Amino acid sequence: MPLDHEDAAAGADDFRAESGGFDAEFVFEVEAAVALGDSDRVHELVGDLHEADLGALLEQLSHEARPRLVELMGSDFDFTALMEVGEATREDILEELPVETLVEGVRDLESDDAVAILETLEPEEQAEVLEALPAQDRIVLRRSLDYPDGSAGRLMQTTLIAVPPFWTAGRVLDFFRETDGDALPDNFFEVFVVDPGYHLLGTVFLDALVRAKPGARLDEIMQEDRRRVKATEDGAEAARLFERYNLVSVPVVDESERLVGVLTIDDIVDVIQEQASEEIKALGGVNPEEELTDDFWWIAKSRFTWLFINMLTAFITSTVLKTFQSQLEQMVALAVLGPIVAGQGGNSATQTMTVAVRALATRELNRSNALKIIFRELAIGGVNGAAFGLVTGLVAANWFQNVGLLPVMALAMFTNLVAGAFGGIVVPLVFDRFKFDPAVSSGPFVTTITDVVGYGAFLTIATLWFHLN
Amino acid sequence: MPLDHEDAAAGADDFRAESGGFDAEFVFEVEAAVALGDSDRVHELVGDLHEADLGALLEQLSHEARPRLVELMGSDFDFTALMEVGEATREDILEELPVETLVEGVRDLESDDAVAILETLEPEEQAEVLEALPAQDRIVLRRSLDYPDGSAGRLMQTTLIAVPPFWTAGRVLDFFRETDGDALPDNFFEVFVVDPGYHLLGTVFLDALVRAKPGARLDEIMQEDRRRVKATEDGAEAARLFERYNLVSVPVVDESERLVGVLTIDDIVDVIQEQASEEIKALGGVNPEEELTDDFWWIAKSRFTWLFINMLTAFITSTVLKTFQSQLEQMVALAVLGPIVAGQGGNSATQTMTVAVRALATRELNRSNALKIIFRELAIGGVNGAAFGLVTGLVAANWFQNVGLLPVMALAMFTNLVAGAFGGIVVPLVFDRFKFDPAVSSGPFVTTITDVVGYGAFLTIATLWFHLN
Repeated sequence: MPLDHEDAAAGADDFRAESGGFDAEFVFEVEAAVALGDSDRVHELVGDLHEADLGALLEQLSHEARPRLVELMGSDFDFTALMEVGEATREDILEELPVETLVEGVRDLESDDAVAILETLEPEEQAEVLEALPAQDRIVLRRSLDYPDGSAGRLMQTTLIAVPPFWTAGRVLDFFRETDGDALPDNFFEVFVVDPGYHLLGTVFLDALVRAKPGARLDEIMQEDRRRVKATEDGAEAARLFERYNLVSVPVVDESERLVGVLTIDDIVDVIQEQASEEIKALGGVNPEEELTDDFWWIAKSRFTWLFINMLTAFITSTVLKTFQSQLEQMVALAVLGPIVAGQGGNSATQTMTVAVRALATRELNRSNALKIIFRELAIGGVNGAAFGLVTGLVAANWFQNVGLLPVMALAMFTNLVAGAFGGIVVPLVFDRFKFDPAVSSGPFVTTITDVVGYGAFLTIATLWFHLN
Repeated sequence: MPLDHEDAAAGADDFRAESGGFDAEFVFEVEAAVALGDSDRVHELVGDLHEADLGALLEQLSHEARPRLVELMGSDFDFTALMEVGEATREDILEELPVETLVEGVRDLESDDAVAILETLEPEEQAEVLEALPAQDRIVLRRSLDYPDGSAGRLMQTTLIAVPPFWTAGRVLDFFRETDGDALPDNFFEVFVVDPGYHLLGTVFLDALVRAKPGARLDEIMQEDRRRVKATEDGAEAARLFERYNLVSVPVVDESERLVGVLTIDDIVDVIQEQASEEIKALGGVNPEEELTDDFWWIAKSRFTWLFINMLTAFITSTVLKTFQSQLEQMVALAVLGPIVAGQGGNSATQTMTVAVRALATRELNRSNALKIIFRELAIGGVNGAAFGLVTGLVAANWFQNVGLLPVMALAMFTNLVAGAFGGIVVPLVFDRFKFDPAVSSGPFVTTITDVVGYGAFLTIATLWFHLN
């Protein structure tokens, strides 16, 4: 989406007032106006809204009202608002809109937004829209769409300013004044210096340009910065570059190093947010793709899948318990206390796993310090294992008036927290090493470890200590 | 930190090559050079590193080597590198450095970085450094430090360009050329238009400025954008504004609406990352402040605290089990199967909680749609509860050759997953409503619900069905 300079004061206020949502009354009014097909009233109500707020509003409207509102707004509807709604809502709206409206809307968008809209459409619909667009637009958009989903090529803005190295600062400034607005990007930070083959030679940021003497040649004032992103590269990789080097924009080049577009920080901010959300969901056992606006059955099904895996691990645990059936019968206290050992282990392992997964995502944890962290986590597991072993052991011993429970509980707890720490750090590292997302896959493995080791150790030690059979 | 335009090609390459870390060999060489106090060698090795990469390197060096490297680099050490290391490492280095070195380094920094360094220092040391700085710097930095920790006032850049409304575009461009570099910010995107009282009238972005006719007055081309941030406002609030409106920078004003600084997107990106990390850690039961580089005992202790709370909840669960001691004795199968009911409930509730917490953080979940989401989650819990009740019930019944276990298991599982869904969505909402961070506090509550309801329902239903006593 374009870096946005328009006044959104009104939006900003509603936004603060209603923590991101509009009050029910306003939403109701809009719904009513839409239902009545009262175009003037709709314009009156939402006409001045900032795209971001219009997006927030669309989220709150009923399925039926959403596309109808777009229709009623006609050419006054800013399609960039569709960049501000969830995936599901966007599809929801787009599939209802006639091709003409789509063409209308897409034509007015910056290339990166146009691509985002097009990739949401069904193949045939996408083709129709592309056909209806002016040739030069079509070519550019087709090229972007050829790049893999989520790649820099999809996210990049293709309208940019590229000039030859022999131009002077003064000439560029004249060029800006003479060129009419539409030929230039809505917002830009730099001019790119390219050779006749459109290979990137360097970048001149506007603040450098305006500081330069009018006679200065661009190749004198440009930065021959080698930092650039390949169009095929994943957006997440690009995001890391932006974060690490505090960039505001970075040129995108094709396989033959030719300049094809520019990535701007605002698109990257979305990528970063998206990554964080996906990591959080994955750690919580939720499909990273799940959106609040998704279809009920889709959500229920995707939750089911993950719970099913957990059920299998739960049965593994129960199998362990079943093998100690007779011991549990002889000493029911073990059935009462077992969950404490398993639970503490699970929670402590989750702590370690969370730290590990996060540190892997931010690249703080890497081959160079992995071993150090592994040992530290084992030590922490040992320390807390000893502490909680003692505490829970004492409580258990006097709860059941059986002093033997102290050593049994303590030893089992210690074992389980160390095992948990080991699993919590090693499992994510292994997944990462083999290019699986540790956030998605670590959870069930780690808790299986702590459940099996927890119950297993506790019941085995108890069997030996109390001579059960 | 300044939005950075320098060449960091080398850094970028190492960075990709070693996933954020330098190879052990290079680190060893640096360590050696530092140990030998070989300043030339150190310059040779790290002199050309980009600040971000120098930061990454510092993280990998030993405690002793870090401050010594800074000393050996002398005035060639770019203090912005200290913005790229973890909190702990920064303190670690700063407390070792003599005041002169600190003054040296801080003087060369942009105001926002200088503030970040100063706020890490001990009060008395901070005072010493401030004293040693030129008066005008001191005044500006003091003012920033007076704003609350994490506020926009602390994050903002105070060097900015403010001009009167009657200036023309041409005059501003001349001003840029005439003014010597040091008086201007290292990088900037806009000029602010202010009245004699320094009240913000509007903003002219450079791309608008260079497009304007030289004779155009700023008050004709400026955007009278009402979006601005109060210096006392929390950085997180500002971040939301940036995200929602895709801003690249926003002016910061004091209580009396006077322009005091500017927030740039790169600082906000750090805030966003920080928030995500804190949310992820909190959900994993880790202190949001915990850094990979923190002190062992600090970490062990903070993990202990949270595990202690979990231990208490674990004992609540065991108390439930203990009340059913005789039933467990009569039918040990219940001890074997109980964990499955409790576990599935816990995992399903965690899914709901994760979605809720994330949606609250992104403001997707708000008063306007809370009720809808609550009902949806209850329905999902019901559907999956029924499904898993049936599956686990069938397995249990034929595992223990006891058909009665089917209805008992099914009913208990259904009850627990519905209860879990309820807890998973309502607990975070309640915490949020009362301004507690739902990410931090929801977990233990939710799992207590599913443990107590899980074991409780399962054993109660079993007692009734099998006439246990």
